Amino acid sequence: MSVEKVVIVGSGPAGLTAAIYAARAALKPLMFEGFSAGGLIPGGQLMFTTDVENYPGFPEGVMGPKMMKMFRDQAERFGTRFIREDVTQVDLSKRPFTVRSDENEVQAHSVIISTGARANWLELPNEQRLAKAGGGVSACAVCDGALPVFRDQELVVVGGGDSAVEEASYLTKFARKVYLVHRRDALRASQIMQERAFKLVEEGKLEIVWDTQVTDVLGDEFISGVELQNIKNNETREFPCKGLFLAIGHTPNTELFKEFLDLDDGKYIKLKTPGRSFTNVDGVFAAGDVADHIYRQAVTAAGTGCMAAIDAERWLAAQGIE
Amino acid sequence: MSVEKVVIVGSGPAGLTAAIYAARAALKPLMFEGFSAGGLIPGGQLMFTTDVENYPGFPEGVMGPKMMKMFRDQAERFGTRFIREDVTQVDLSKRPFTVRSDENEVQAHSVIISTGARANWLELPNEQRLAKAGGGVSACAVCDGALPVFRDQELVVVGGGDSAVEEASYLTKFARKVYLVHRRDALRASQIMQERAFKLVEEGKLEIVWDTQVTDVLGDEFISGVELQNIKNNETREFPCKGLFLAIGHTPNTELFKEFLDLDDGKYIKLKTPGRSFTNVDGVFAAGDVADHIYRQAVTAAGTGCMAAIDAERWLAAQGIE
Repeated sequence: MSVEKVVIVGSGPAGLTAAIYAARAALKPLMFEGFSAGGLIPGGQLMFTTDVENYPGFPEGVMGPKMMKMFRDQAERFGTRFIREDVTQVDLSKRPFTVRSDENEVQAHSVIISTGARANWLELPNEQRLAKAGGGVSACAVCDGALPVFRDQELVVVGGGDSAVEEASYLTKFARKVYLVHRRDALRASQIMQERAFKLVEEGKLEIVWDTQVTDVLGDEFISGVELQNIKNNETREFPCKGLFLAIGHTPNTELFKEFLDLDDGKYIKLKTPGRSFTNVDGVFAAGDVADHIYRQAVTAAGTGCMAAIDAERWLAAQGIE
Repeated sequence: MSVEKVVIVGSGPAGLTAAIYAARAALKPLMFEGFSAGGLIPGGQLMFTTDVENYPGFPEGVMGPKMMKMFRDQAERFGTRFIREDVTQVDLSKRPFTVRSDENEVQAHSVIISTGARANWLELPNEQRLAKAGGGVSACAVCDGALPVFRDQELVVVGGGDSAVEEASYLTKFARKVYLVHRRDALRASQIMQERAFKLVEEGKLEIVWDTQVTDVLGDEFISGVELQNIKNNETREFPCKGLFLAIGHTPNTELFKEFLDLDDGKYIKLKTPGRSFTNVDGVFAAGDVADHIYRQAVTAAGTGCMAAIDAERWLAAQGIE
């Protein structure tokens, strides 16, 4: 069995940018792009997105799936080979590394991991449908909050941590009013973020709905409201709104790698040096949301994908593998 | 005088991406985009580039200036305001900060610095002309080395440091042969990079031309060769080649800021935490090549521009500046 120079696992903006750079560096990368299992999907989270307005280079915006097709075409043009399967098992304990799927097993001198992170959802029937259809349900306020459909509307944010307050605070710039729905009677957010939240409450821009969960999402083509349930007395009520933003965390897709790689408390891959792509295993690189719990944007993922390919190329050259 | 929320200095991929994100966050960014003085130019280094093949999202490639126009249109669409002047002076010693040009003086709660770095050139008459016209002269092997015009050709790299060896090594993947022209009789590169160079020499892929400088670039529309001068005996000779790559370092555009910001040995802005955009001055953020001597790609610059805007937005919110 011949040994691949670079195997890339995951096909969102990070993985495909790594592929473009690795292919242009004549490394003939092999990418496992996934097969829609377990909530993952070739192309990554942007496949769930309609209009992308903030990826630079598209002044009129671009549809998420169309954009990912262009990334993929570009990677393919320079010689990336694709396997449309999920990776089921890896062995990063010895070199060359092994990467397995149901029907393939390959050996690799280096591996770039760009499996991303998935937003946590409430798992309500209407929620996923509306999220995928651009129906006013989103797990990323920074990505979607500025869309015209949310301007001067009443919006609901679900969550109680730092991210939830950050997203709610961000949305107050656009919304008529933001309602932060939280299951408990206190925020989990840090002191400074709580102060920010309470200041927004004082200013009338934010209202916190305590002890409450969202039990249904209402609306046909676009969200018209949510069903709220008070956790203490189980009473439910319909609550009209024109946008629902989930901010109940992300789960990085690191299950396959946890046996070999250092992860942080949130199970994200720990980088050996922040701002580079090296992991604790020589020859294994990470890029994109799988190692980023802060920015999570298409363009930041793409930037780190480029970094991983350049780091891998130089590492391979230093090993004498050309 | 009203105080701007965010002033962005520099209009390459980093600055314009910061502008897109800051504008979408309703911060109404004000950008000093420069006025072509001192080798700087609105749009940054890509304005000197013809085909960009590695910025993800453009499978057929895109011309550098066209791409920067799209970045700019996108930033403008969301409300960025532009001043077409160079910044002549800043005061980052007290808040609000002050940013001055010949005809304007503005105060700012936060500043994003994305002034880039300029490649060092030999400053030969034909060199700049051919570089700007896509005539086979470049200061970035990773950007341009994979272009078809360089395949199976004899290429000249100028320099003797780590970057020069890295670029020469990279080009051996594509070229018939690479000639590394160096002014001294020993490389400045690190031990490991020297070993890599000598291995390539053994394999016949690389030849090092010692004690020699390039004194002229030959060719009308496309480079046909260089004039080489031996420094020890001053003899000159014409040397045919189909590509010239400068690897004699970069100079970050940090003159204006050195009084206020921590710089590293190469005069790049030092980031407080690698992988974030904070500088040693609270409220001042850096993005792109001005703080990156490793990757220097359009997409990595864009990624860090996004990070700077998100960091600035959250910092402003934490200060109660909305």
